[in-house]
Amino acid sequence: MNIYDRLEELGIQLSPVTPAGIYATVVEFEGSMVCTSGHNCKVGDTLPHRGRVGQQVTLEEGQACARQCAVNLLSSLHAALGDLNRIRQIVRMTGYVASADTFFDQPKVLDGASQLFVQLFGPEAGKAARTAVGVSVLANNQPVVIELMAQLHEAG
Amino acid sequence: MNIYDRLEELGIQLSPVTPAGIYATVVEFEGSMVCTSGHNCKVGDTLPHRGRVGQQVTLEEGQACARQCAVNLLSSLHAALGDLNRIRQIVRMTGYVASADTFFDQPKVLDGASQLFVQLFGPEAGKAARTAVGVSVLANNQPVVIELMAQLHEAG
Amino acid sequence: MNIYDRLEELGIQLSPVTPAGIYATVVEFEGSMVCTSGHNCKVGDTLPHRGRVGQQVTLEEGQACARQCAVNLLSSLHAALGDLNRIRQIVRMTGYVASADTFFDQPKVLDGASQLFVQLFGPEAGKAARTAVGVSVLANNQPVVIELMAQLHEAG
Repeated sequence: MNIYDRLEELGIQLSPVTPAGIYATVVEFEGSMVCTSGHNCKVGDTLPHRGRVGQQVTLEEGQACARQCAVNLLSSLHAALGDLNRIRQIVRMTGYVASADTFFDQPKVLDGASQLFVQLFGPEAGKAARTAVGVSVLANNQPVVIELMAQLHEAG
Repeated sequence: MNIYDRLEELGIQLSPVTPAGIYATVVEFEGSMVCTSGHNCKVGDTLPHRGRVGQQVTLEEGQACARQCAVNLLSSLHAALGDLNRIRQIVRMTGYVASADTFFDQPKVLDGASQLFVQLFGPEAGKAARTAVGVSVLANNQPVVIELMAQLHEAG
Repeated sequence: MNIYDRLEELGIQLSPVTPAGIYATVVEFEGSMVCTSGHNCKVGDTLPHRGRVGQQVTLEEGQACARQCAVNLLSSLHAALGDLNRIRQIVRMTGYVASADTFFDQPKVLDGASQLFVQLFGPEAGKAARTAVGVSVLANNQPVVIELMAQLHEAG
């Protein structure tokens, strides 16, 4: 099934992401690999939540943020690749969660993103080698930032 | 010399690692590369230490944690690859150390893992391009999380 | 234009970087890729600044630190590759910024490094997929650590 059909089923719309500095949102390399910059959870120009999960942001809000990071990653990948169906496997994913000192559920936060990738790409291709990192603060006071590396289908 | 003989000499036993969320412990890509998820220092189901190095956890304990992360990484790589002798080079390694605000020896902590990789794979292949990151908190309140990327020998 | 001519124009001198532990500063893989360890902002043997950006270190000082991290990365890449002109694209870059809890401009700090890469390699090849991470503490109390992955031109 086509990724864009699944996105439509899930009611997800992709809107372009603008880099907040001197970097690219996506870089292709080796012909069949792609790396992304760290993406935040903005909806359009607005951050739905600010601060640390376990403090200003609840676990459920953090999961929604992670899901929105995934949507934004897909937007950038769509813009760079032209076609999200080119993605063969989400290879690795690192998620940074701004965390209260007593918040220990970073993986549950990131599951908000991973669940969407599995819905779109399937249980194999959507499951990355993932690292969940708790940090004290992120750019713009955003609660979650996610980056990934993916492998593409061979051309032609 | 065979990696499994070296593991036996060192008295190291590998036991399977279960992902704590929607991710894979290991993903192969490009035919000859492999990425891992961030691995913790659990021994079986038990975290030997919790908290921050320089606070609840000593440097020596942190080094033992890093070594155990390496053992757990090897367990997952063994499960995914079938044969650890397929590993040609530990290419990169990122280690996250939950750190007291006044603890500045993150690289010494990670040496606990790197030392084991050098013992097993040799001084060239075992030495990764490594980054040591101090963070305020990690999942489960574990003190150390390590991920790596490795290159495999060409098949047959 | 030759990278070394541009370095000379900018008055940049490269001096060797020594690993502070059991790791390699640079590892080549897949024939045309290269990963670096996390590099700090030392000038020779001296850290020009210590502590957190937004606290002991100003934004401008942090940017200068990031630029120096880039210089040190170039030193290590020069030592490993023999010729910096072999670099085709800075693919990804992760920058860790030791940050005050109320400092939210990590991307501006990293622009200090990215700007130099763009000056040297051009606006396409110098622009990586970048992630800016705020952390509580880094090795040696250094304010910025940067690692990167780059693609090389095909040999011959």
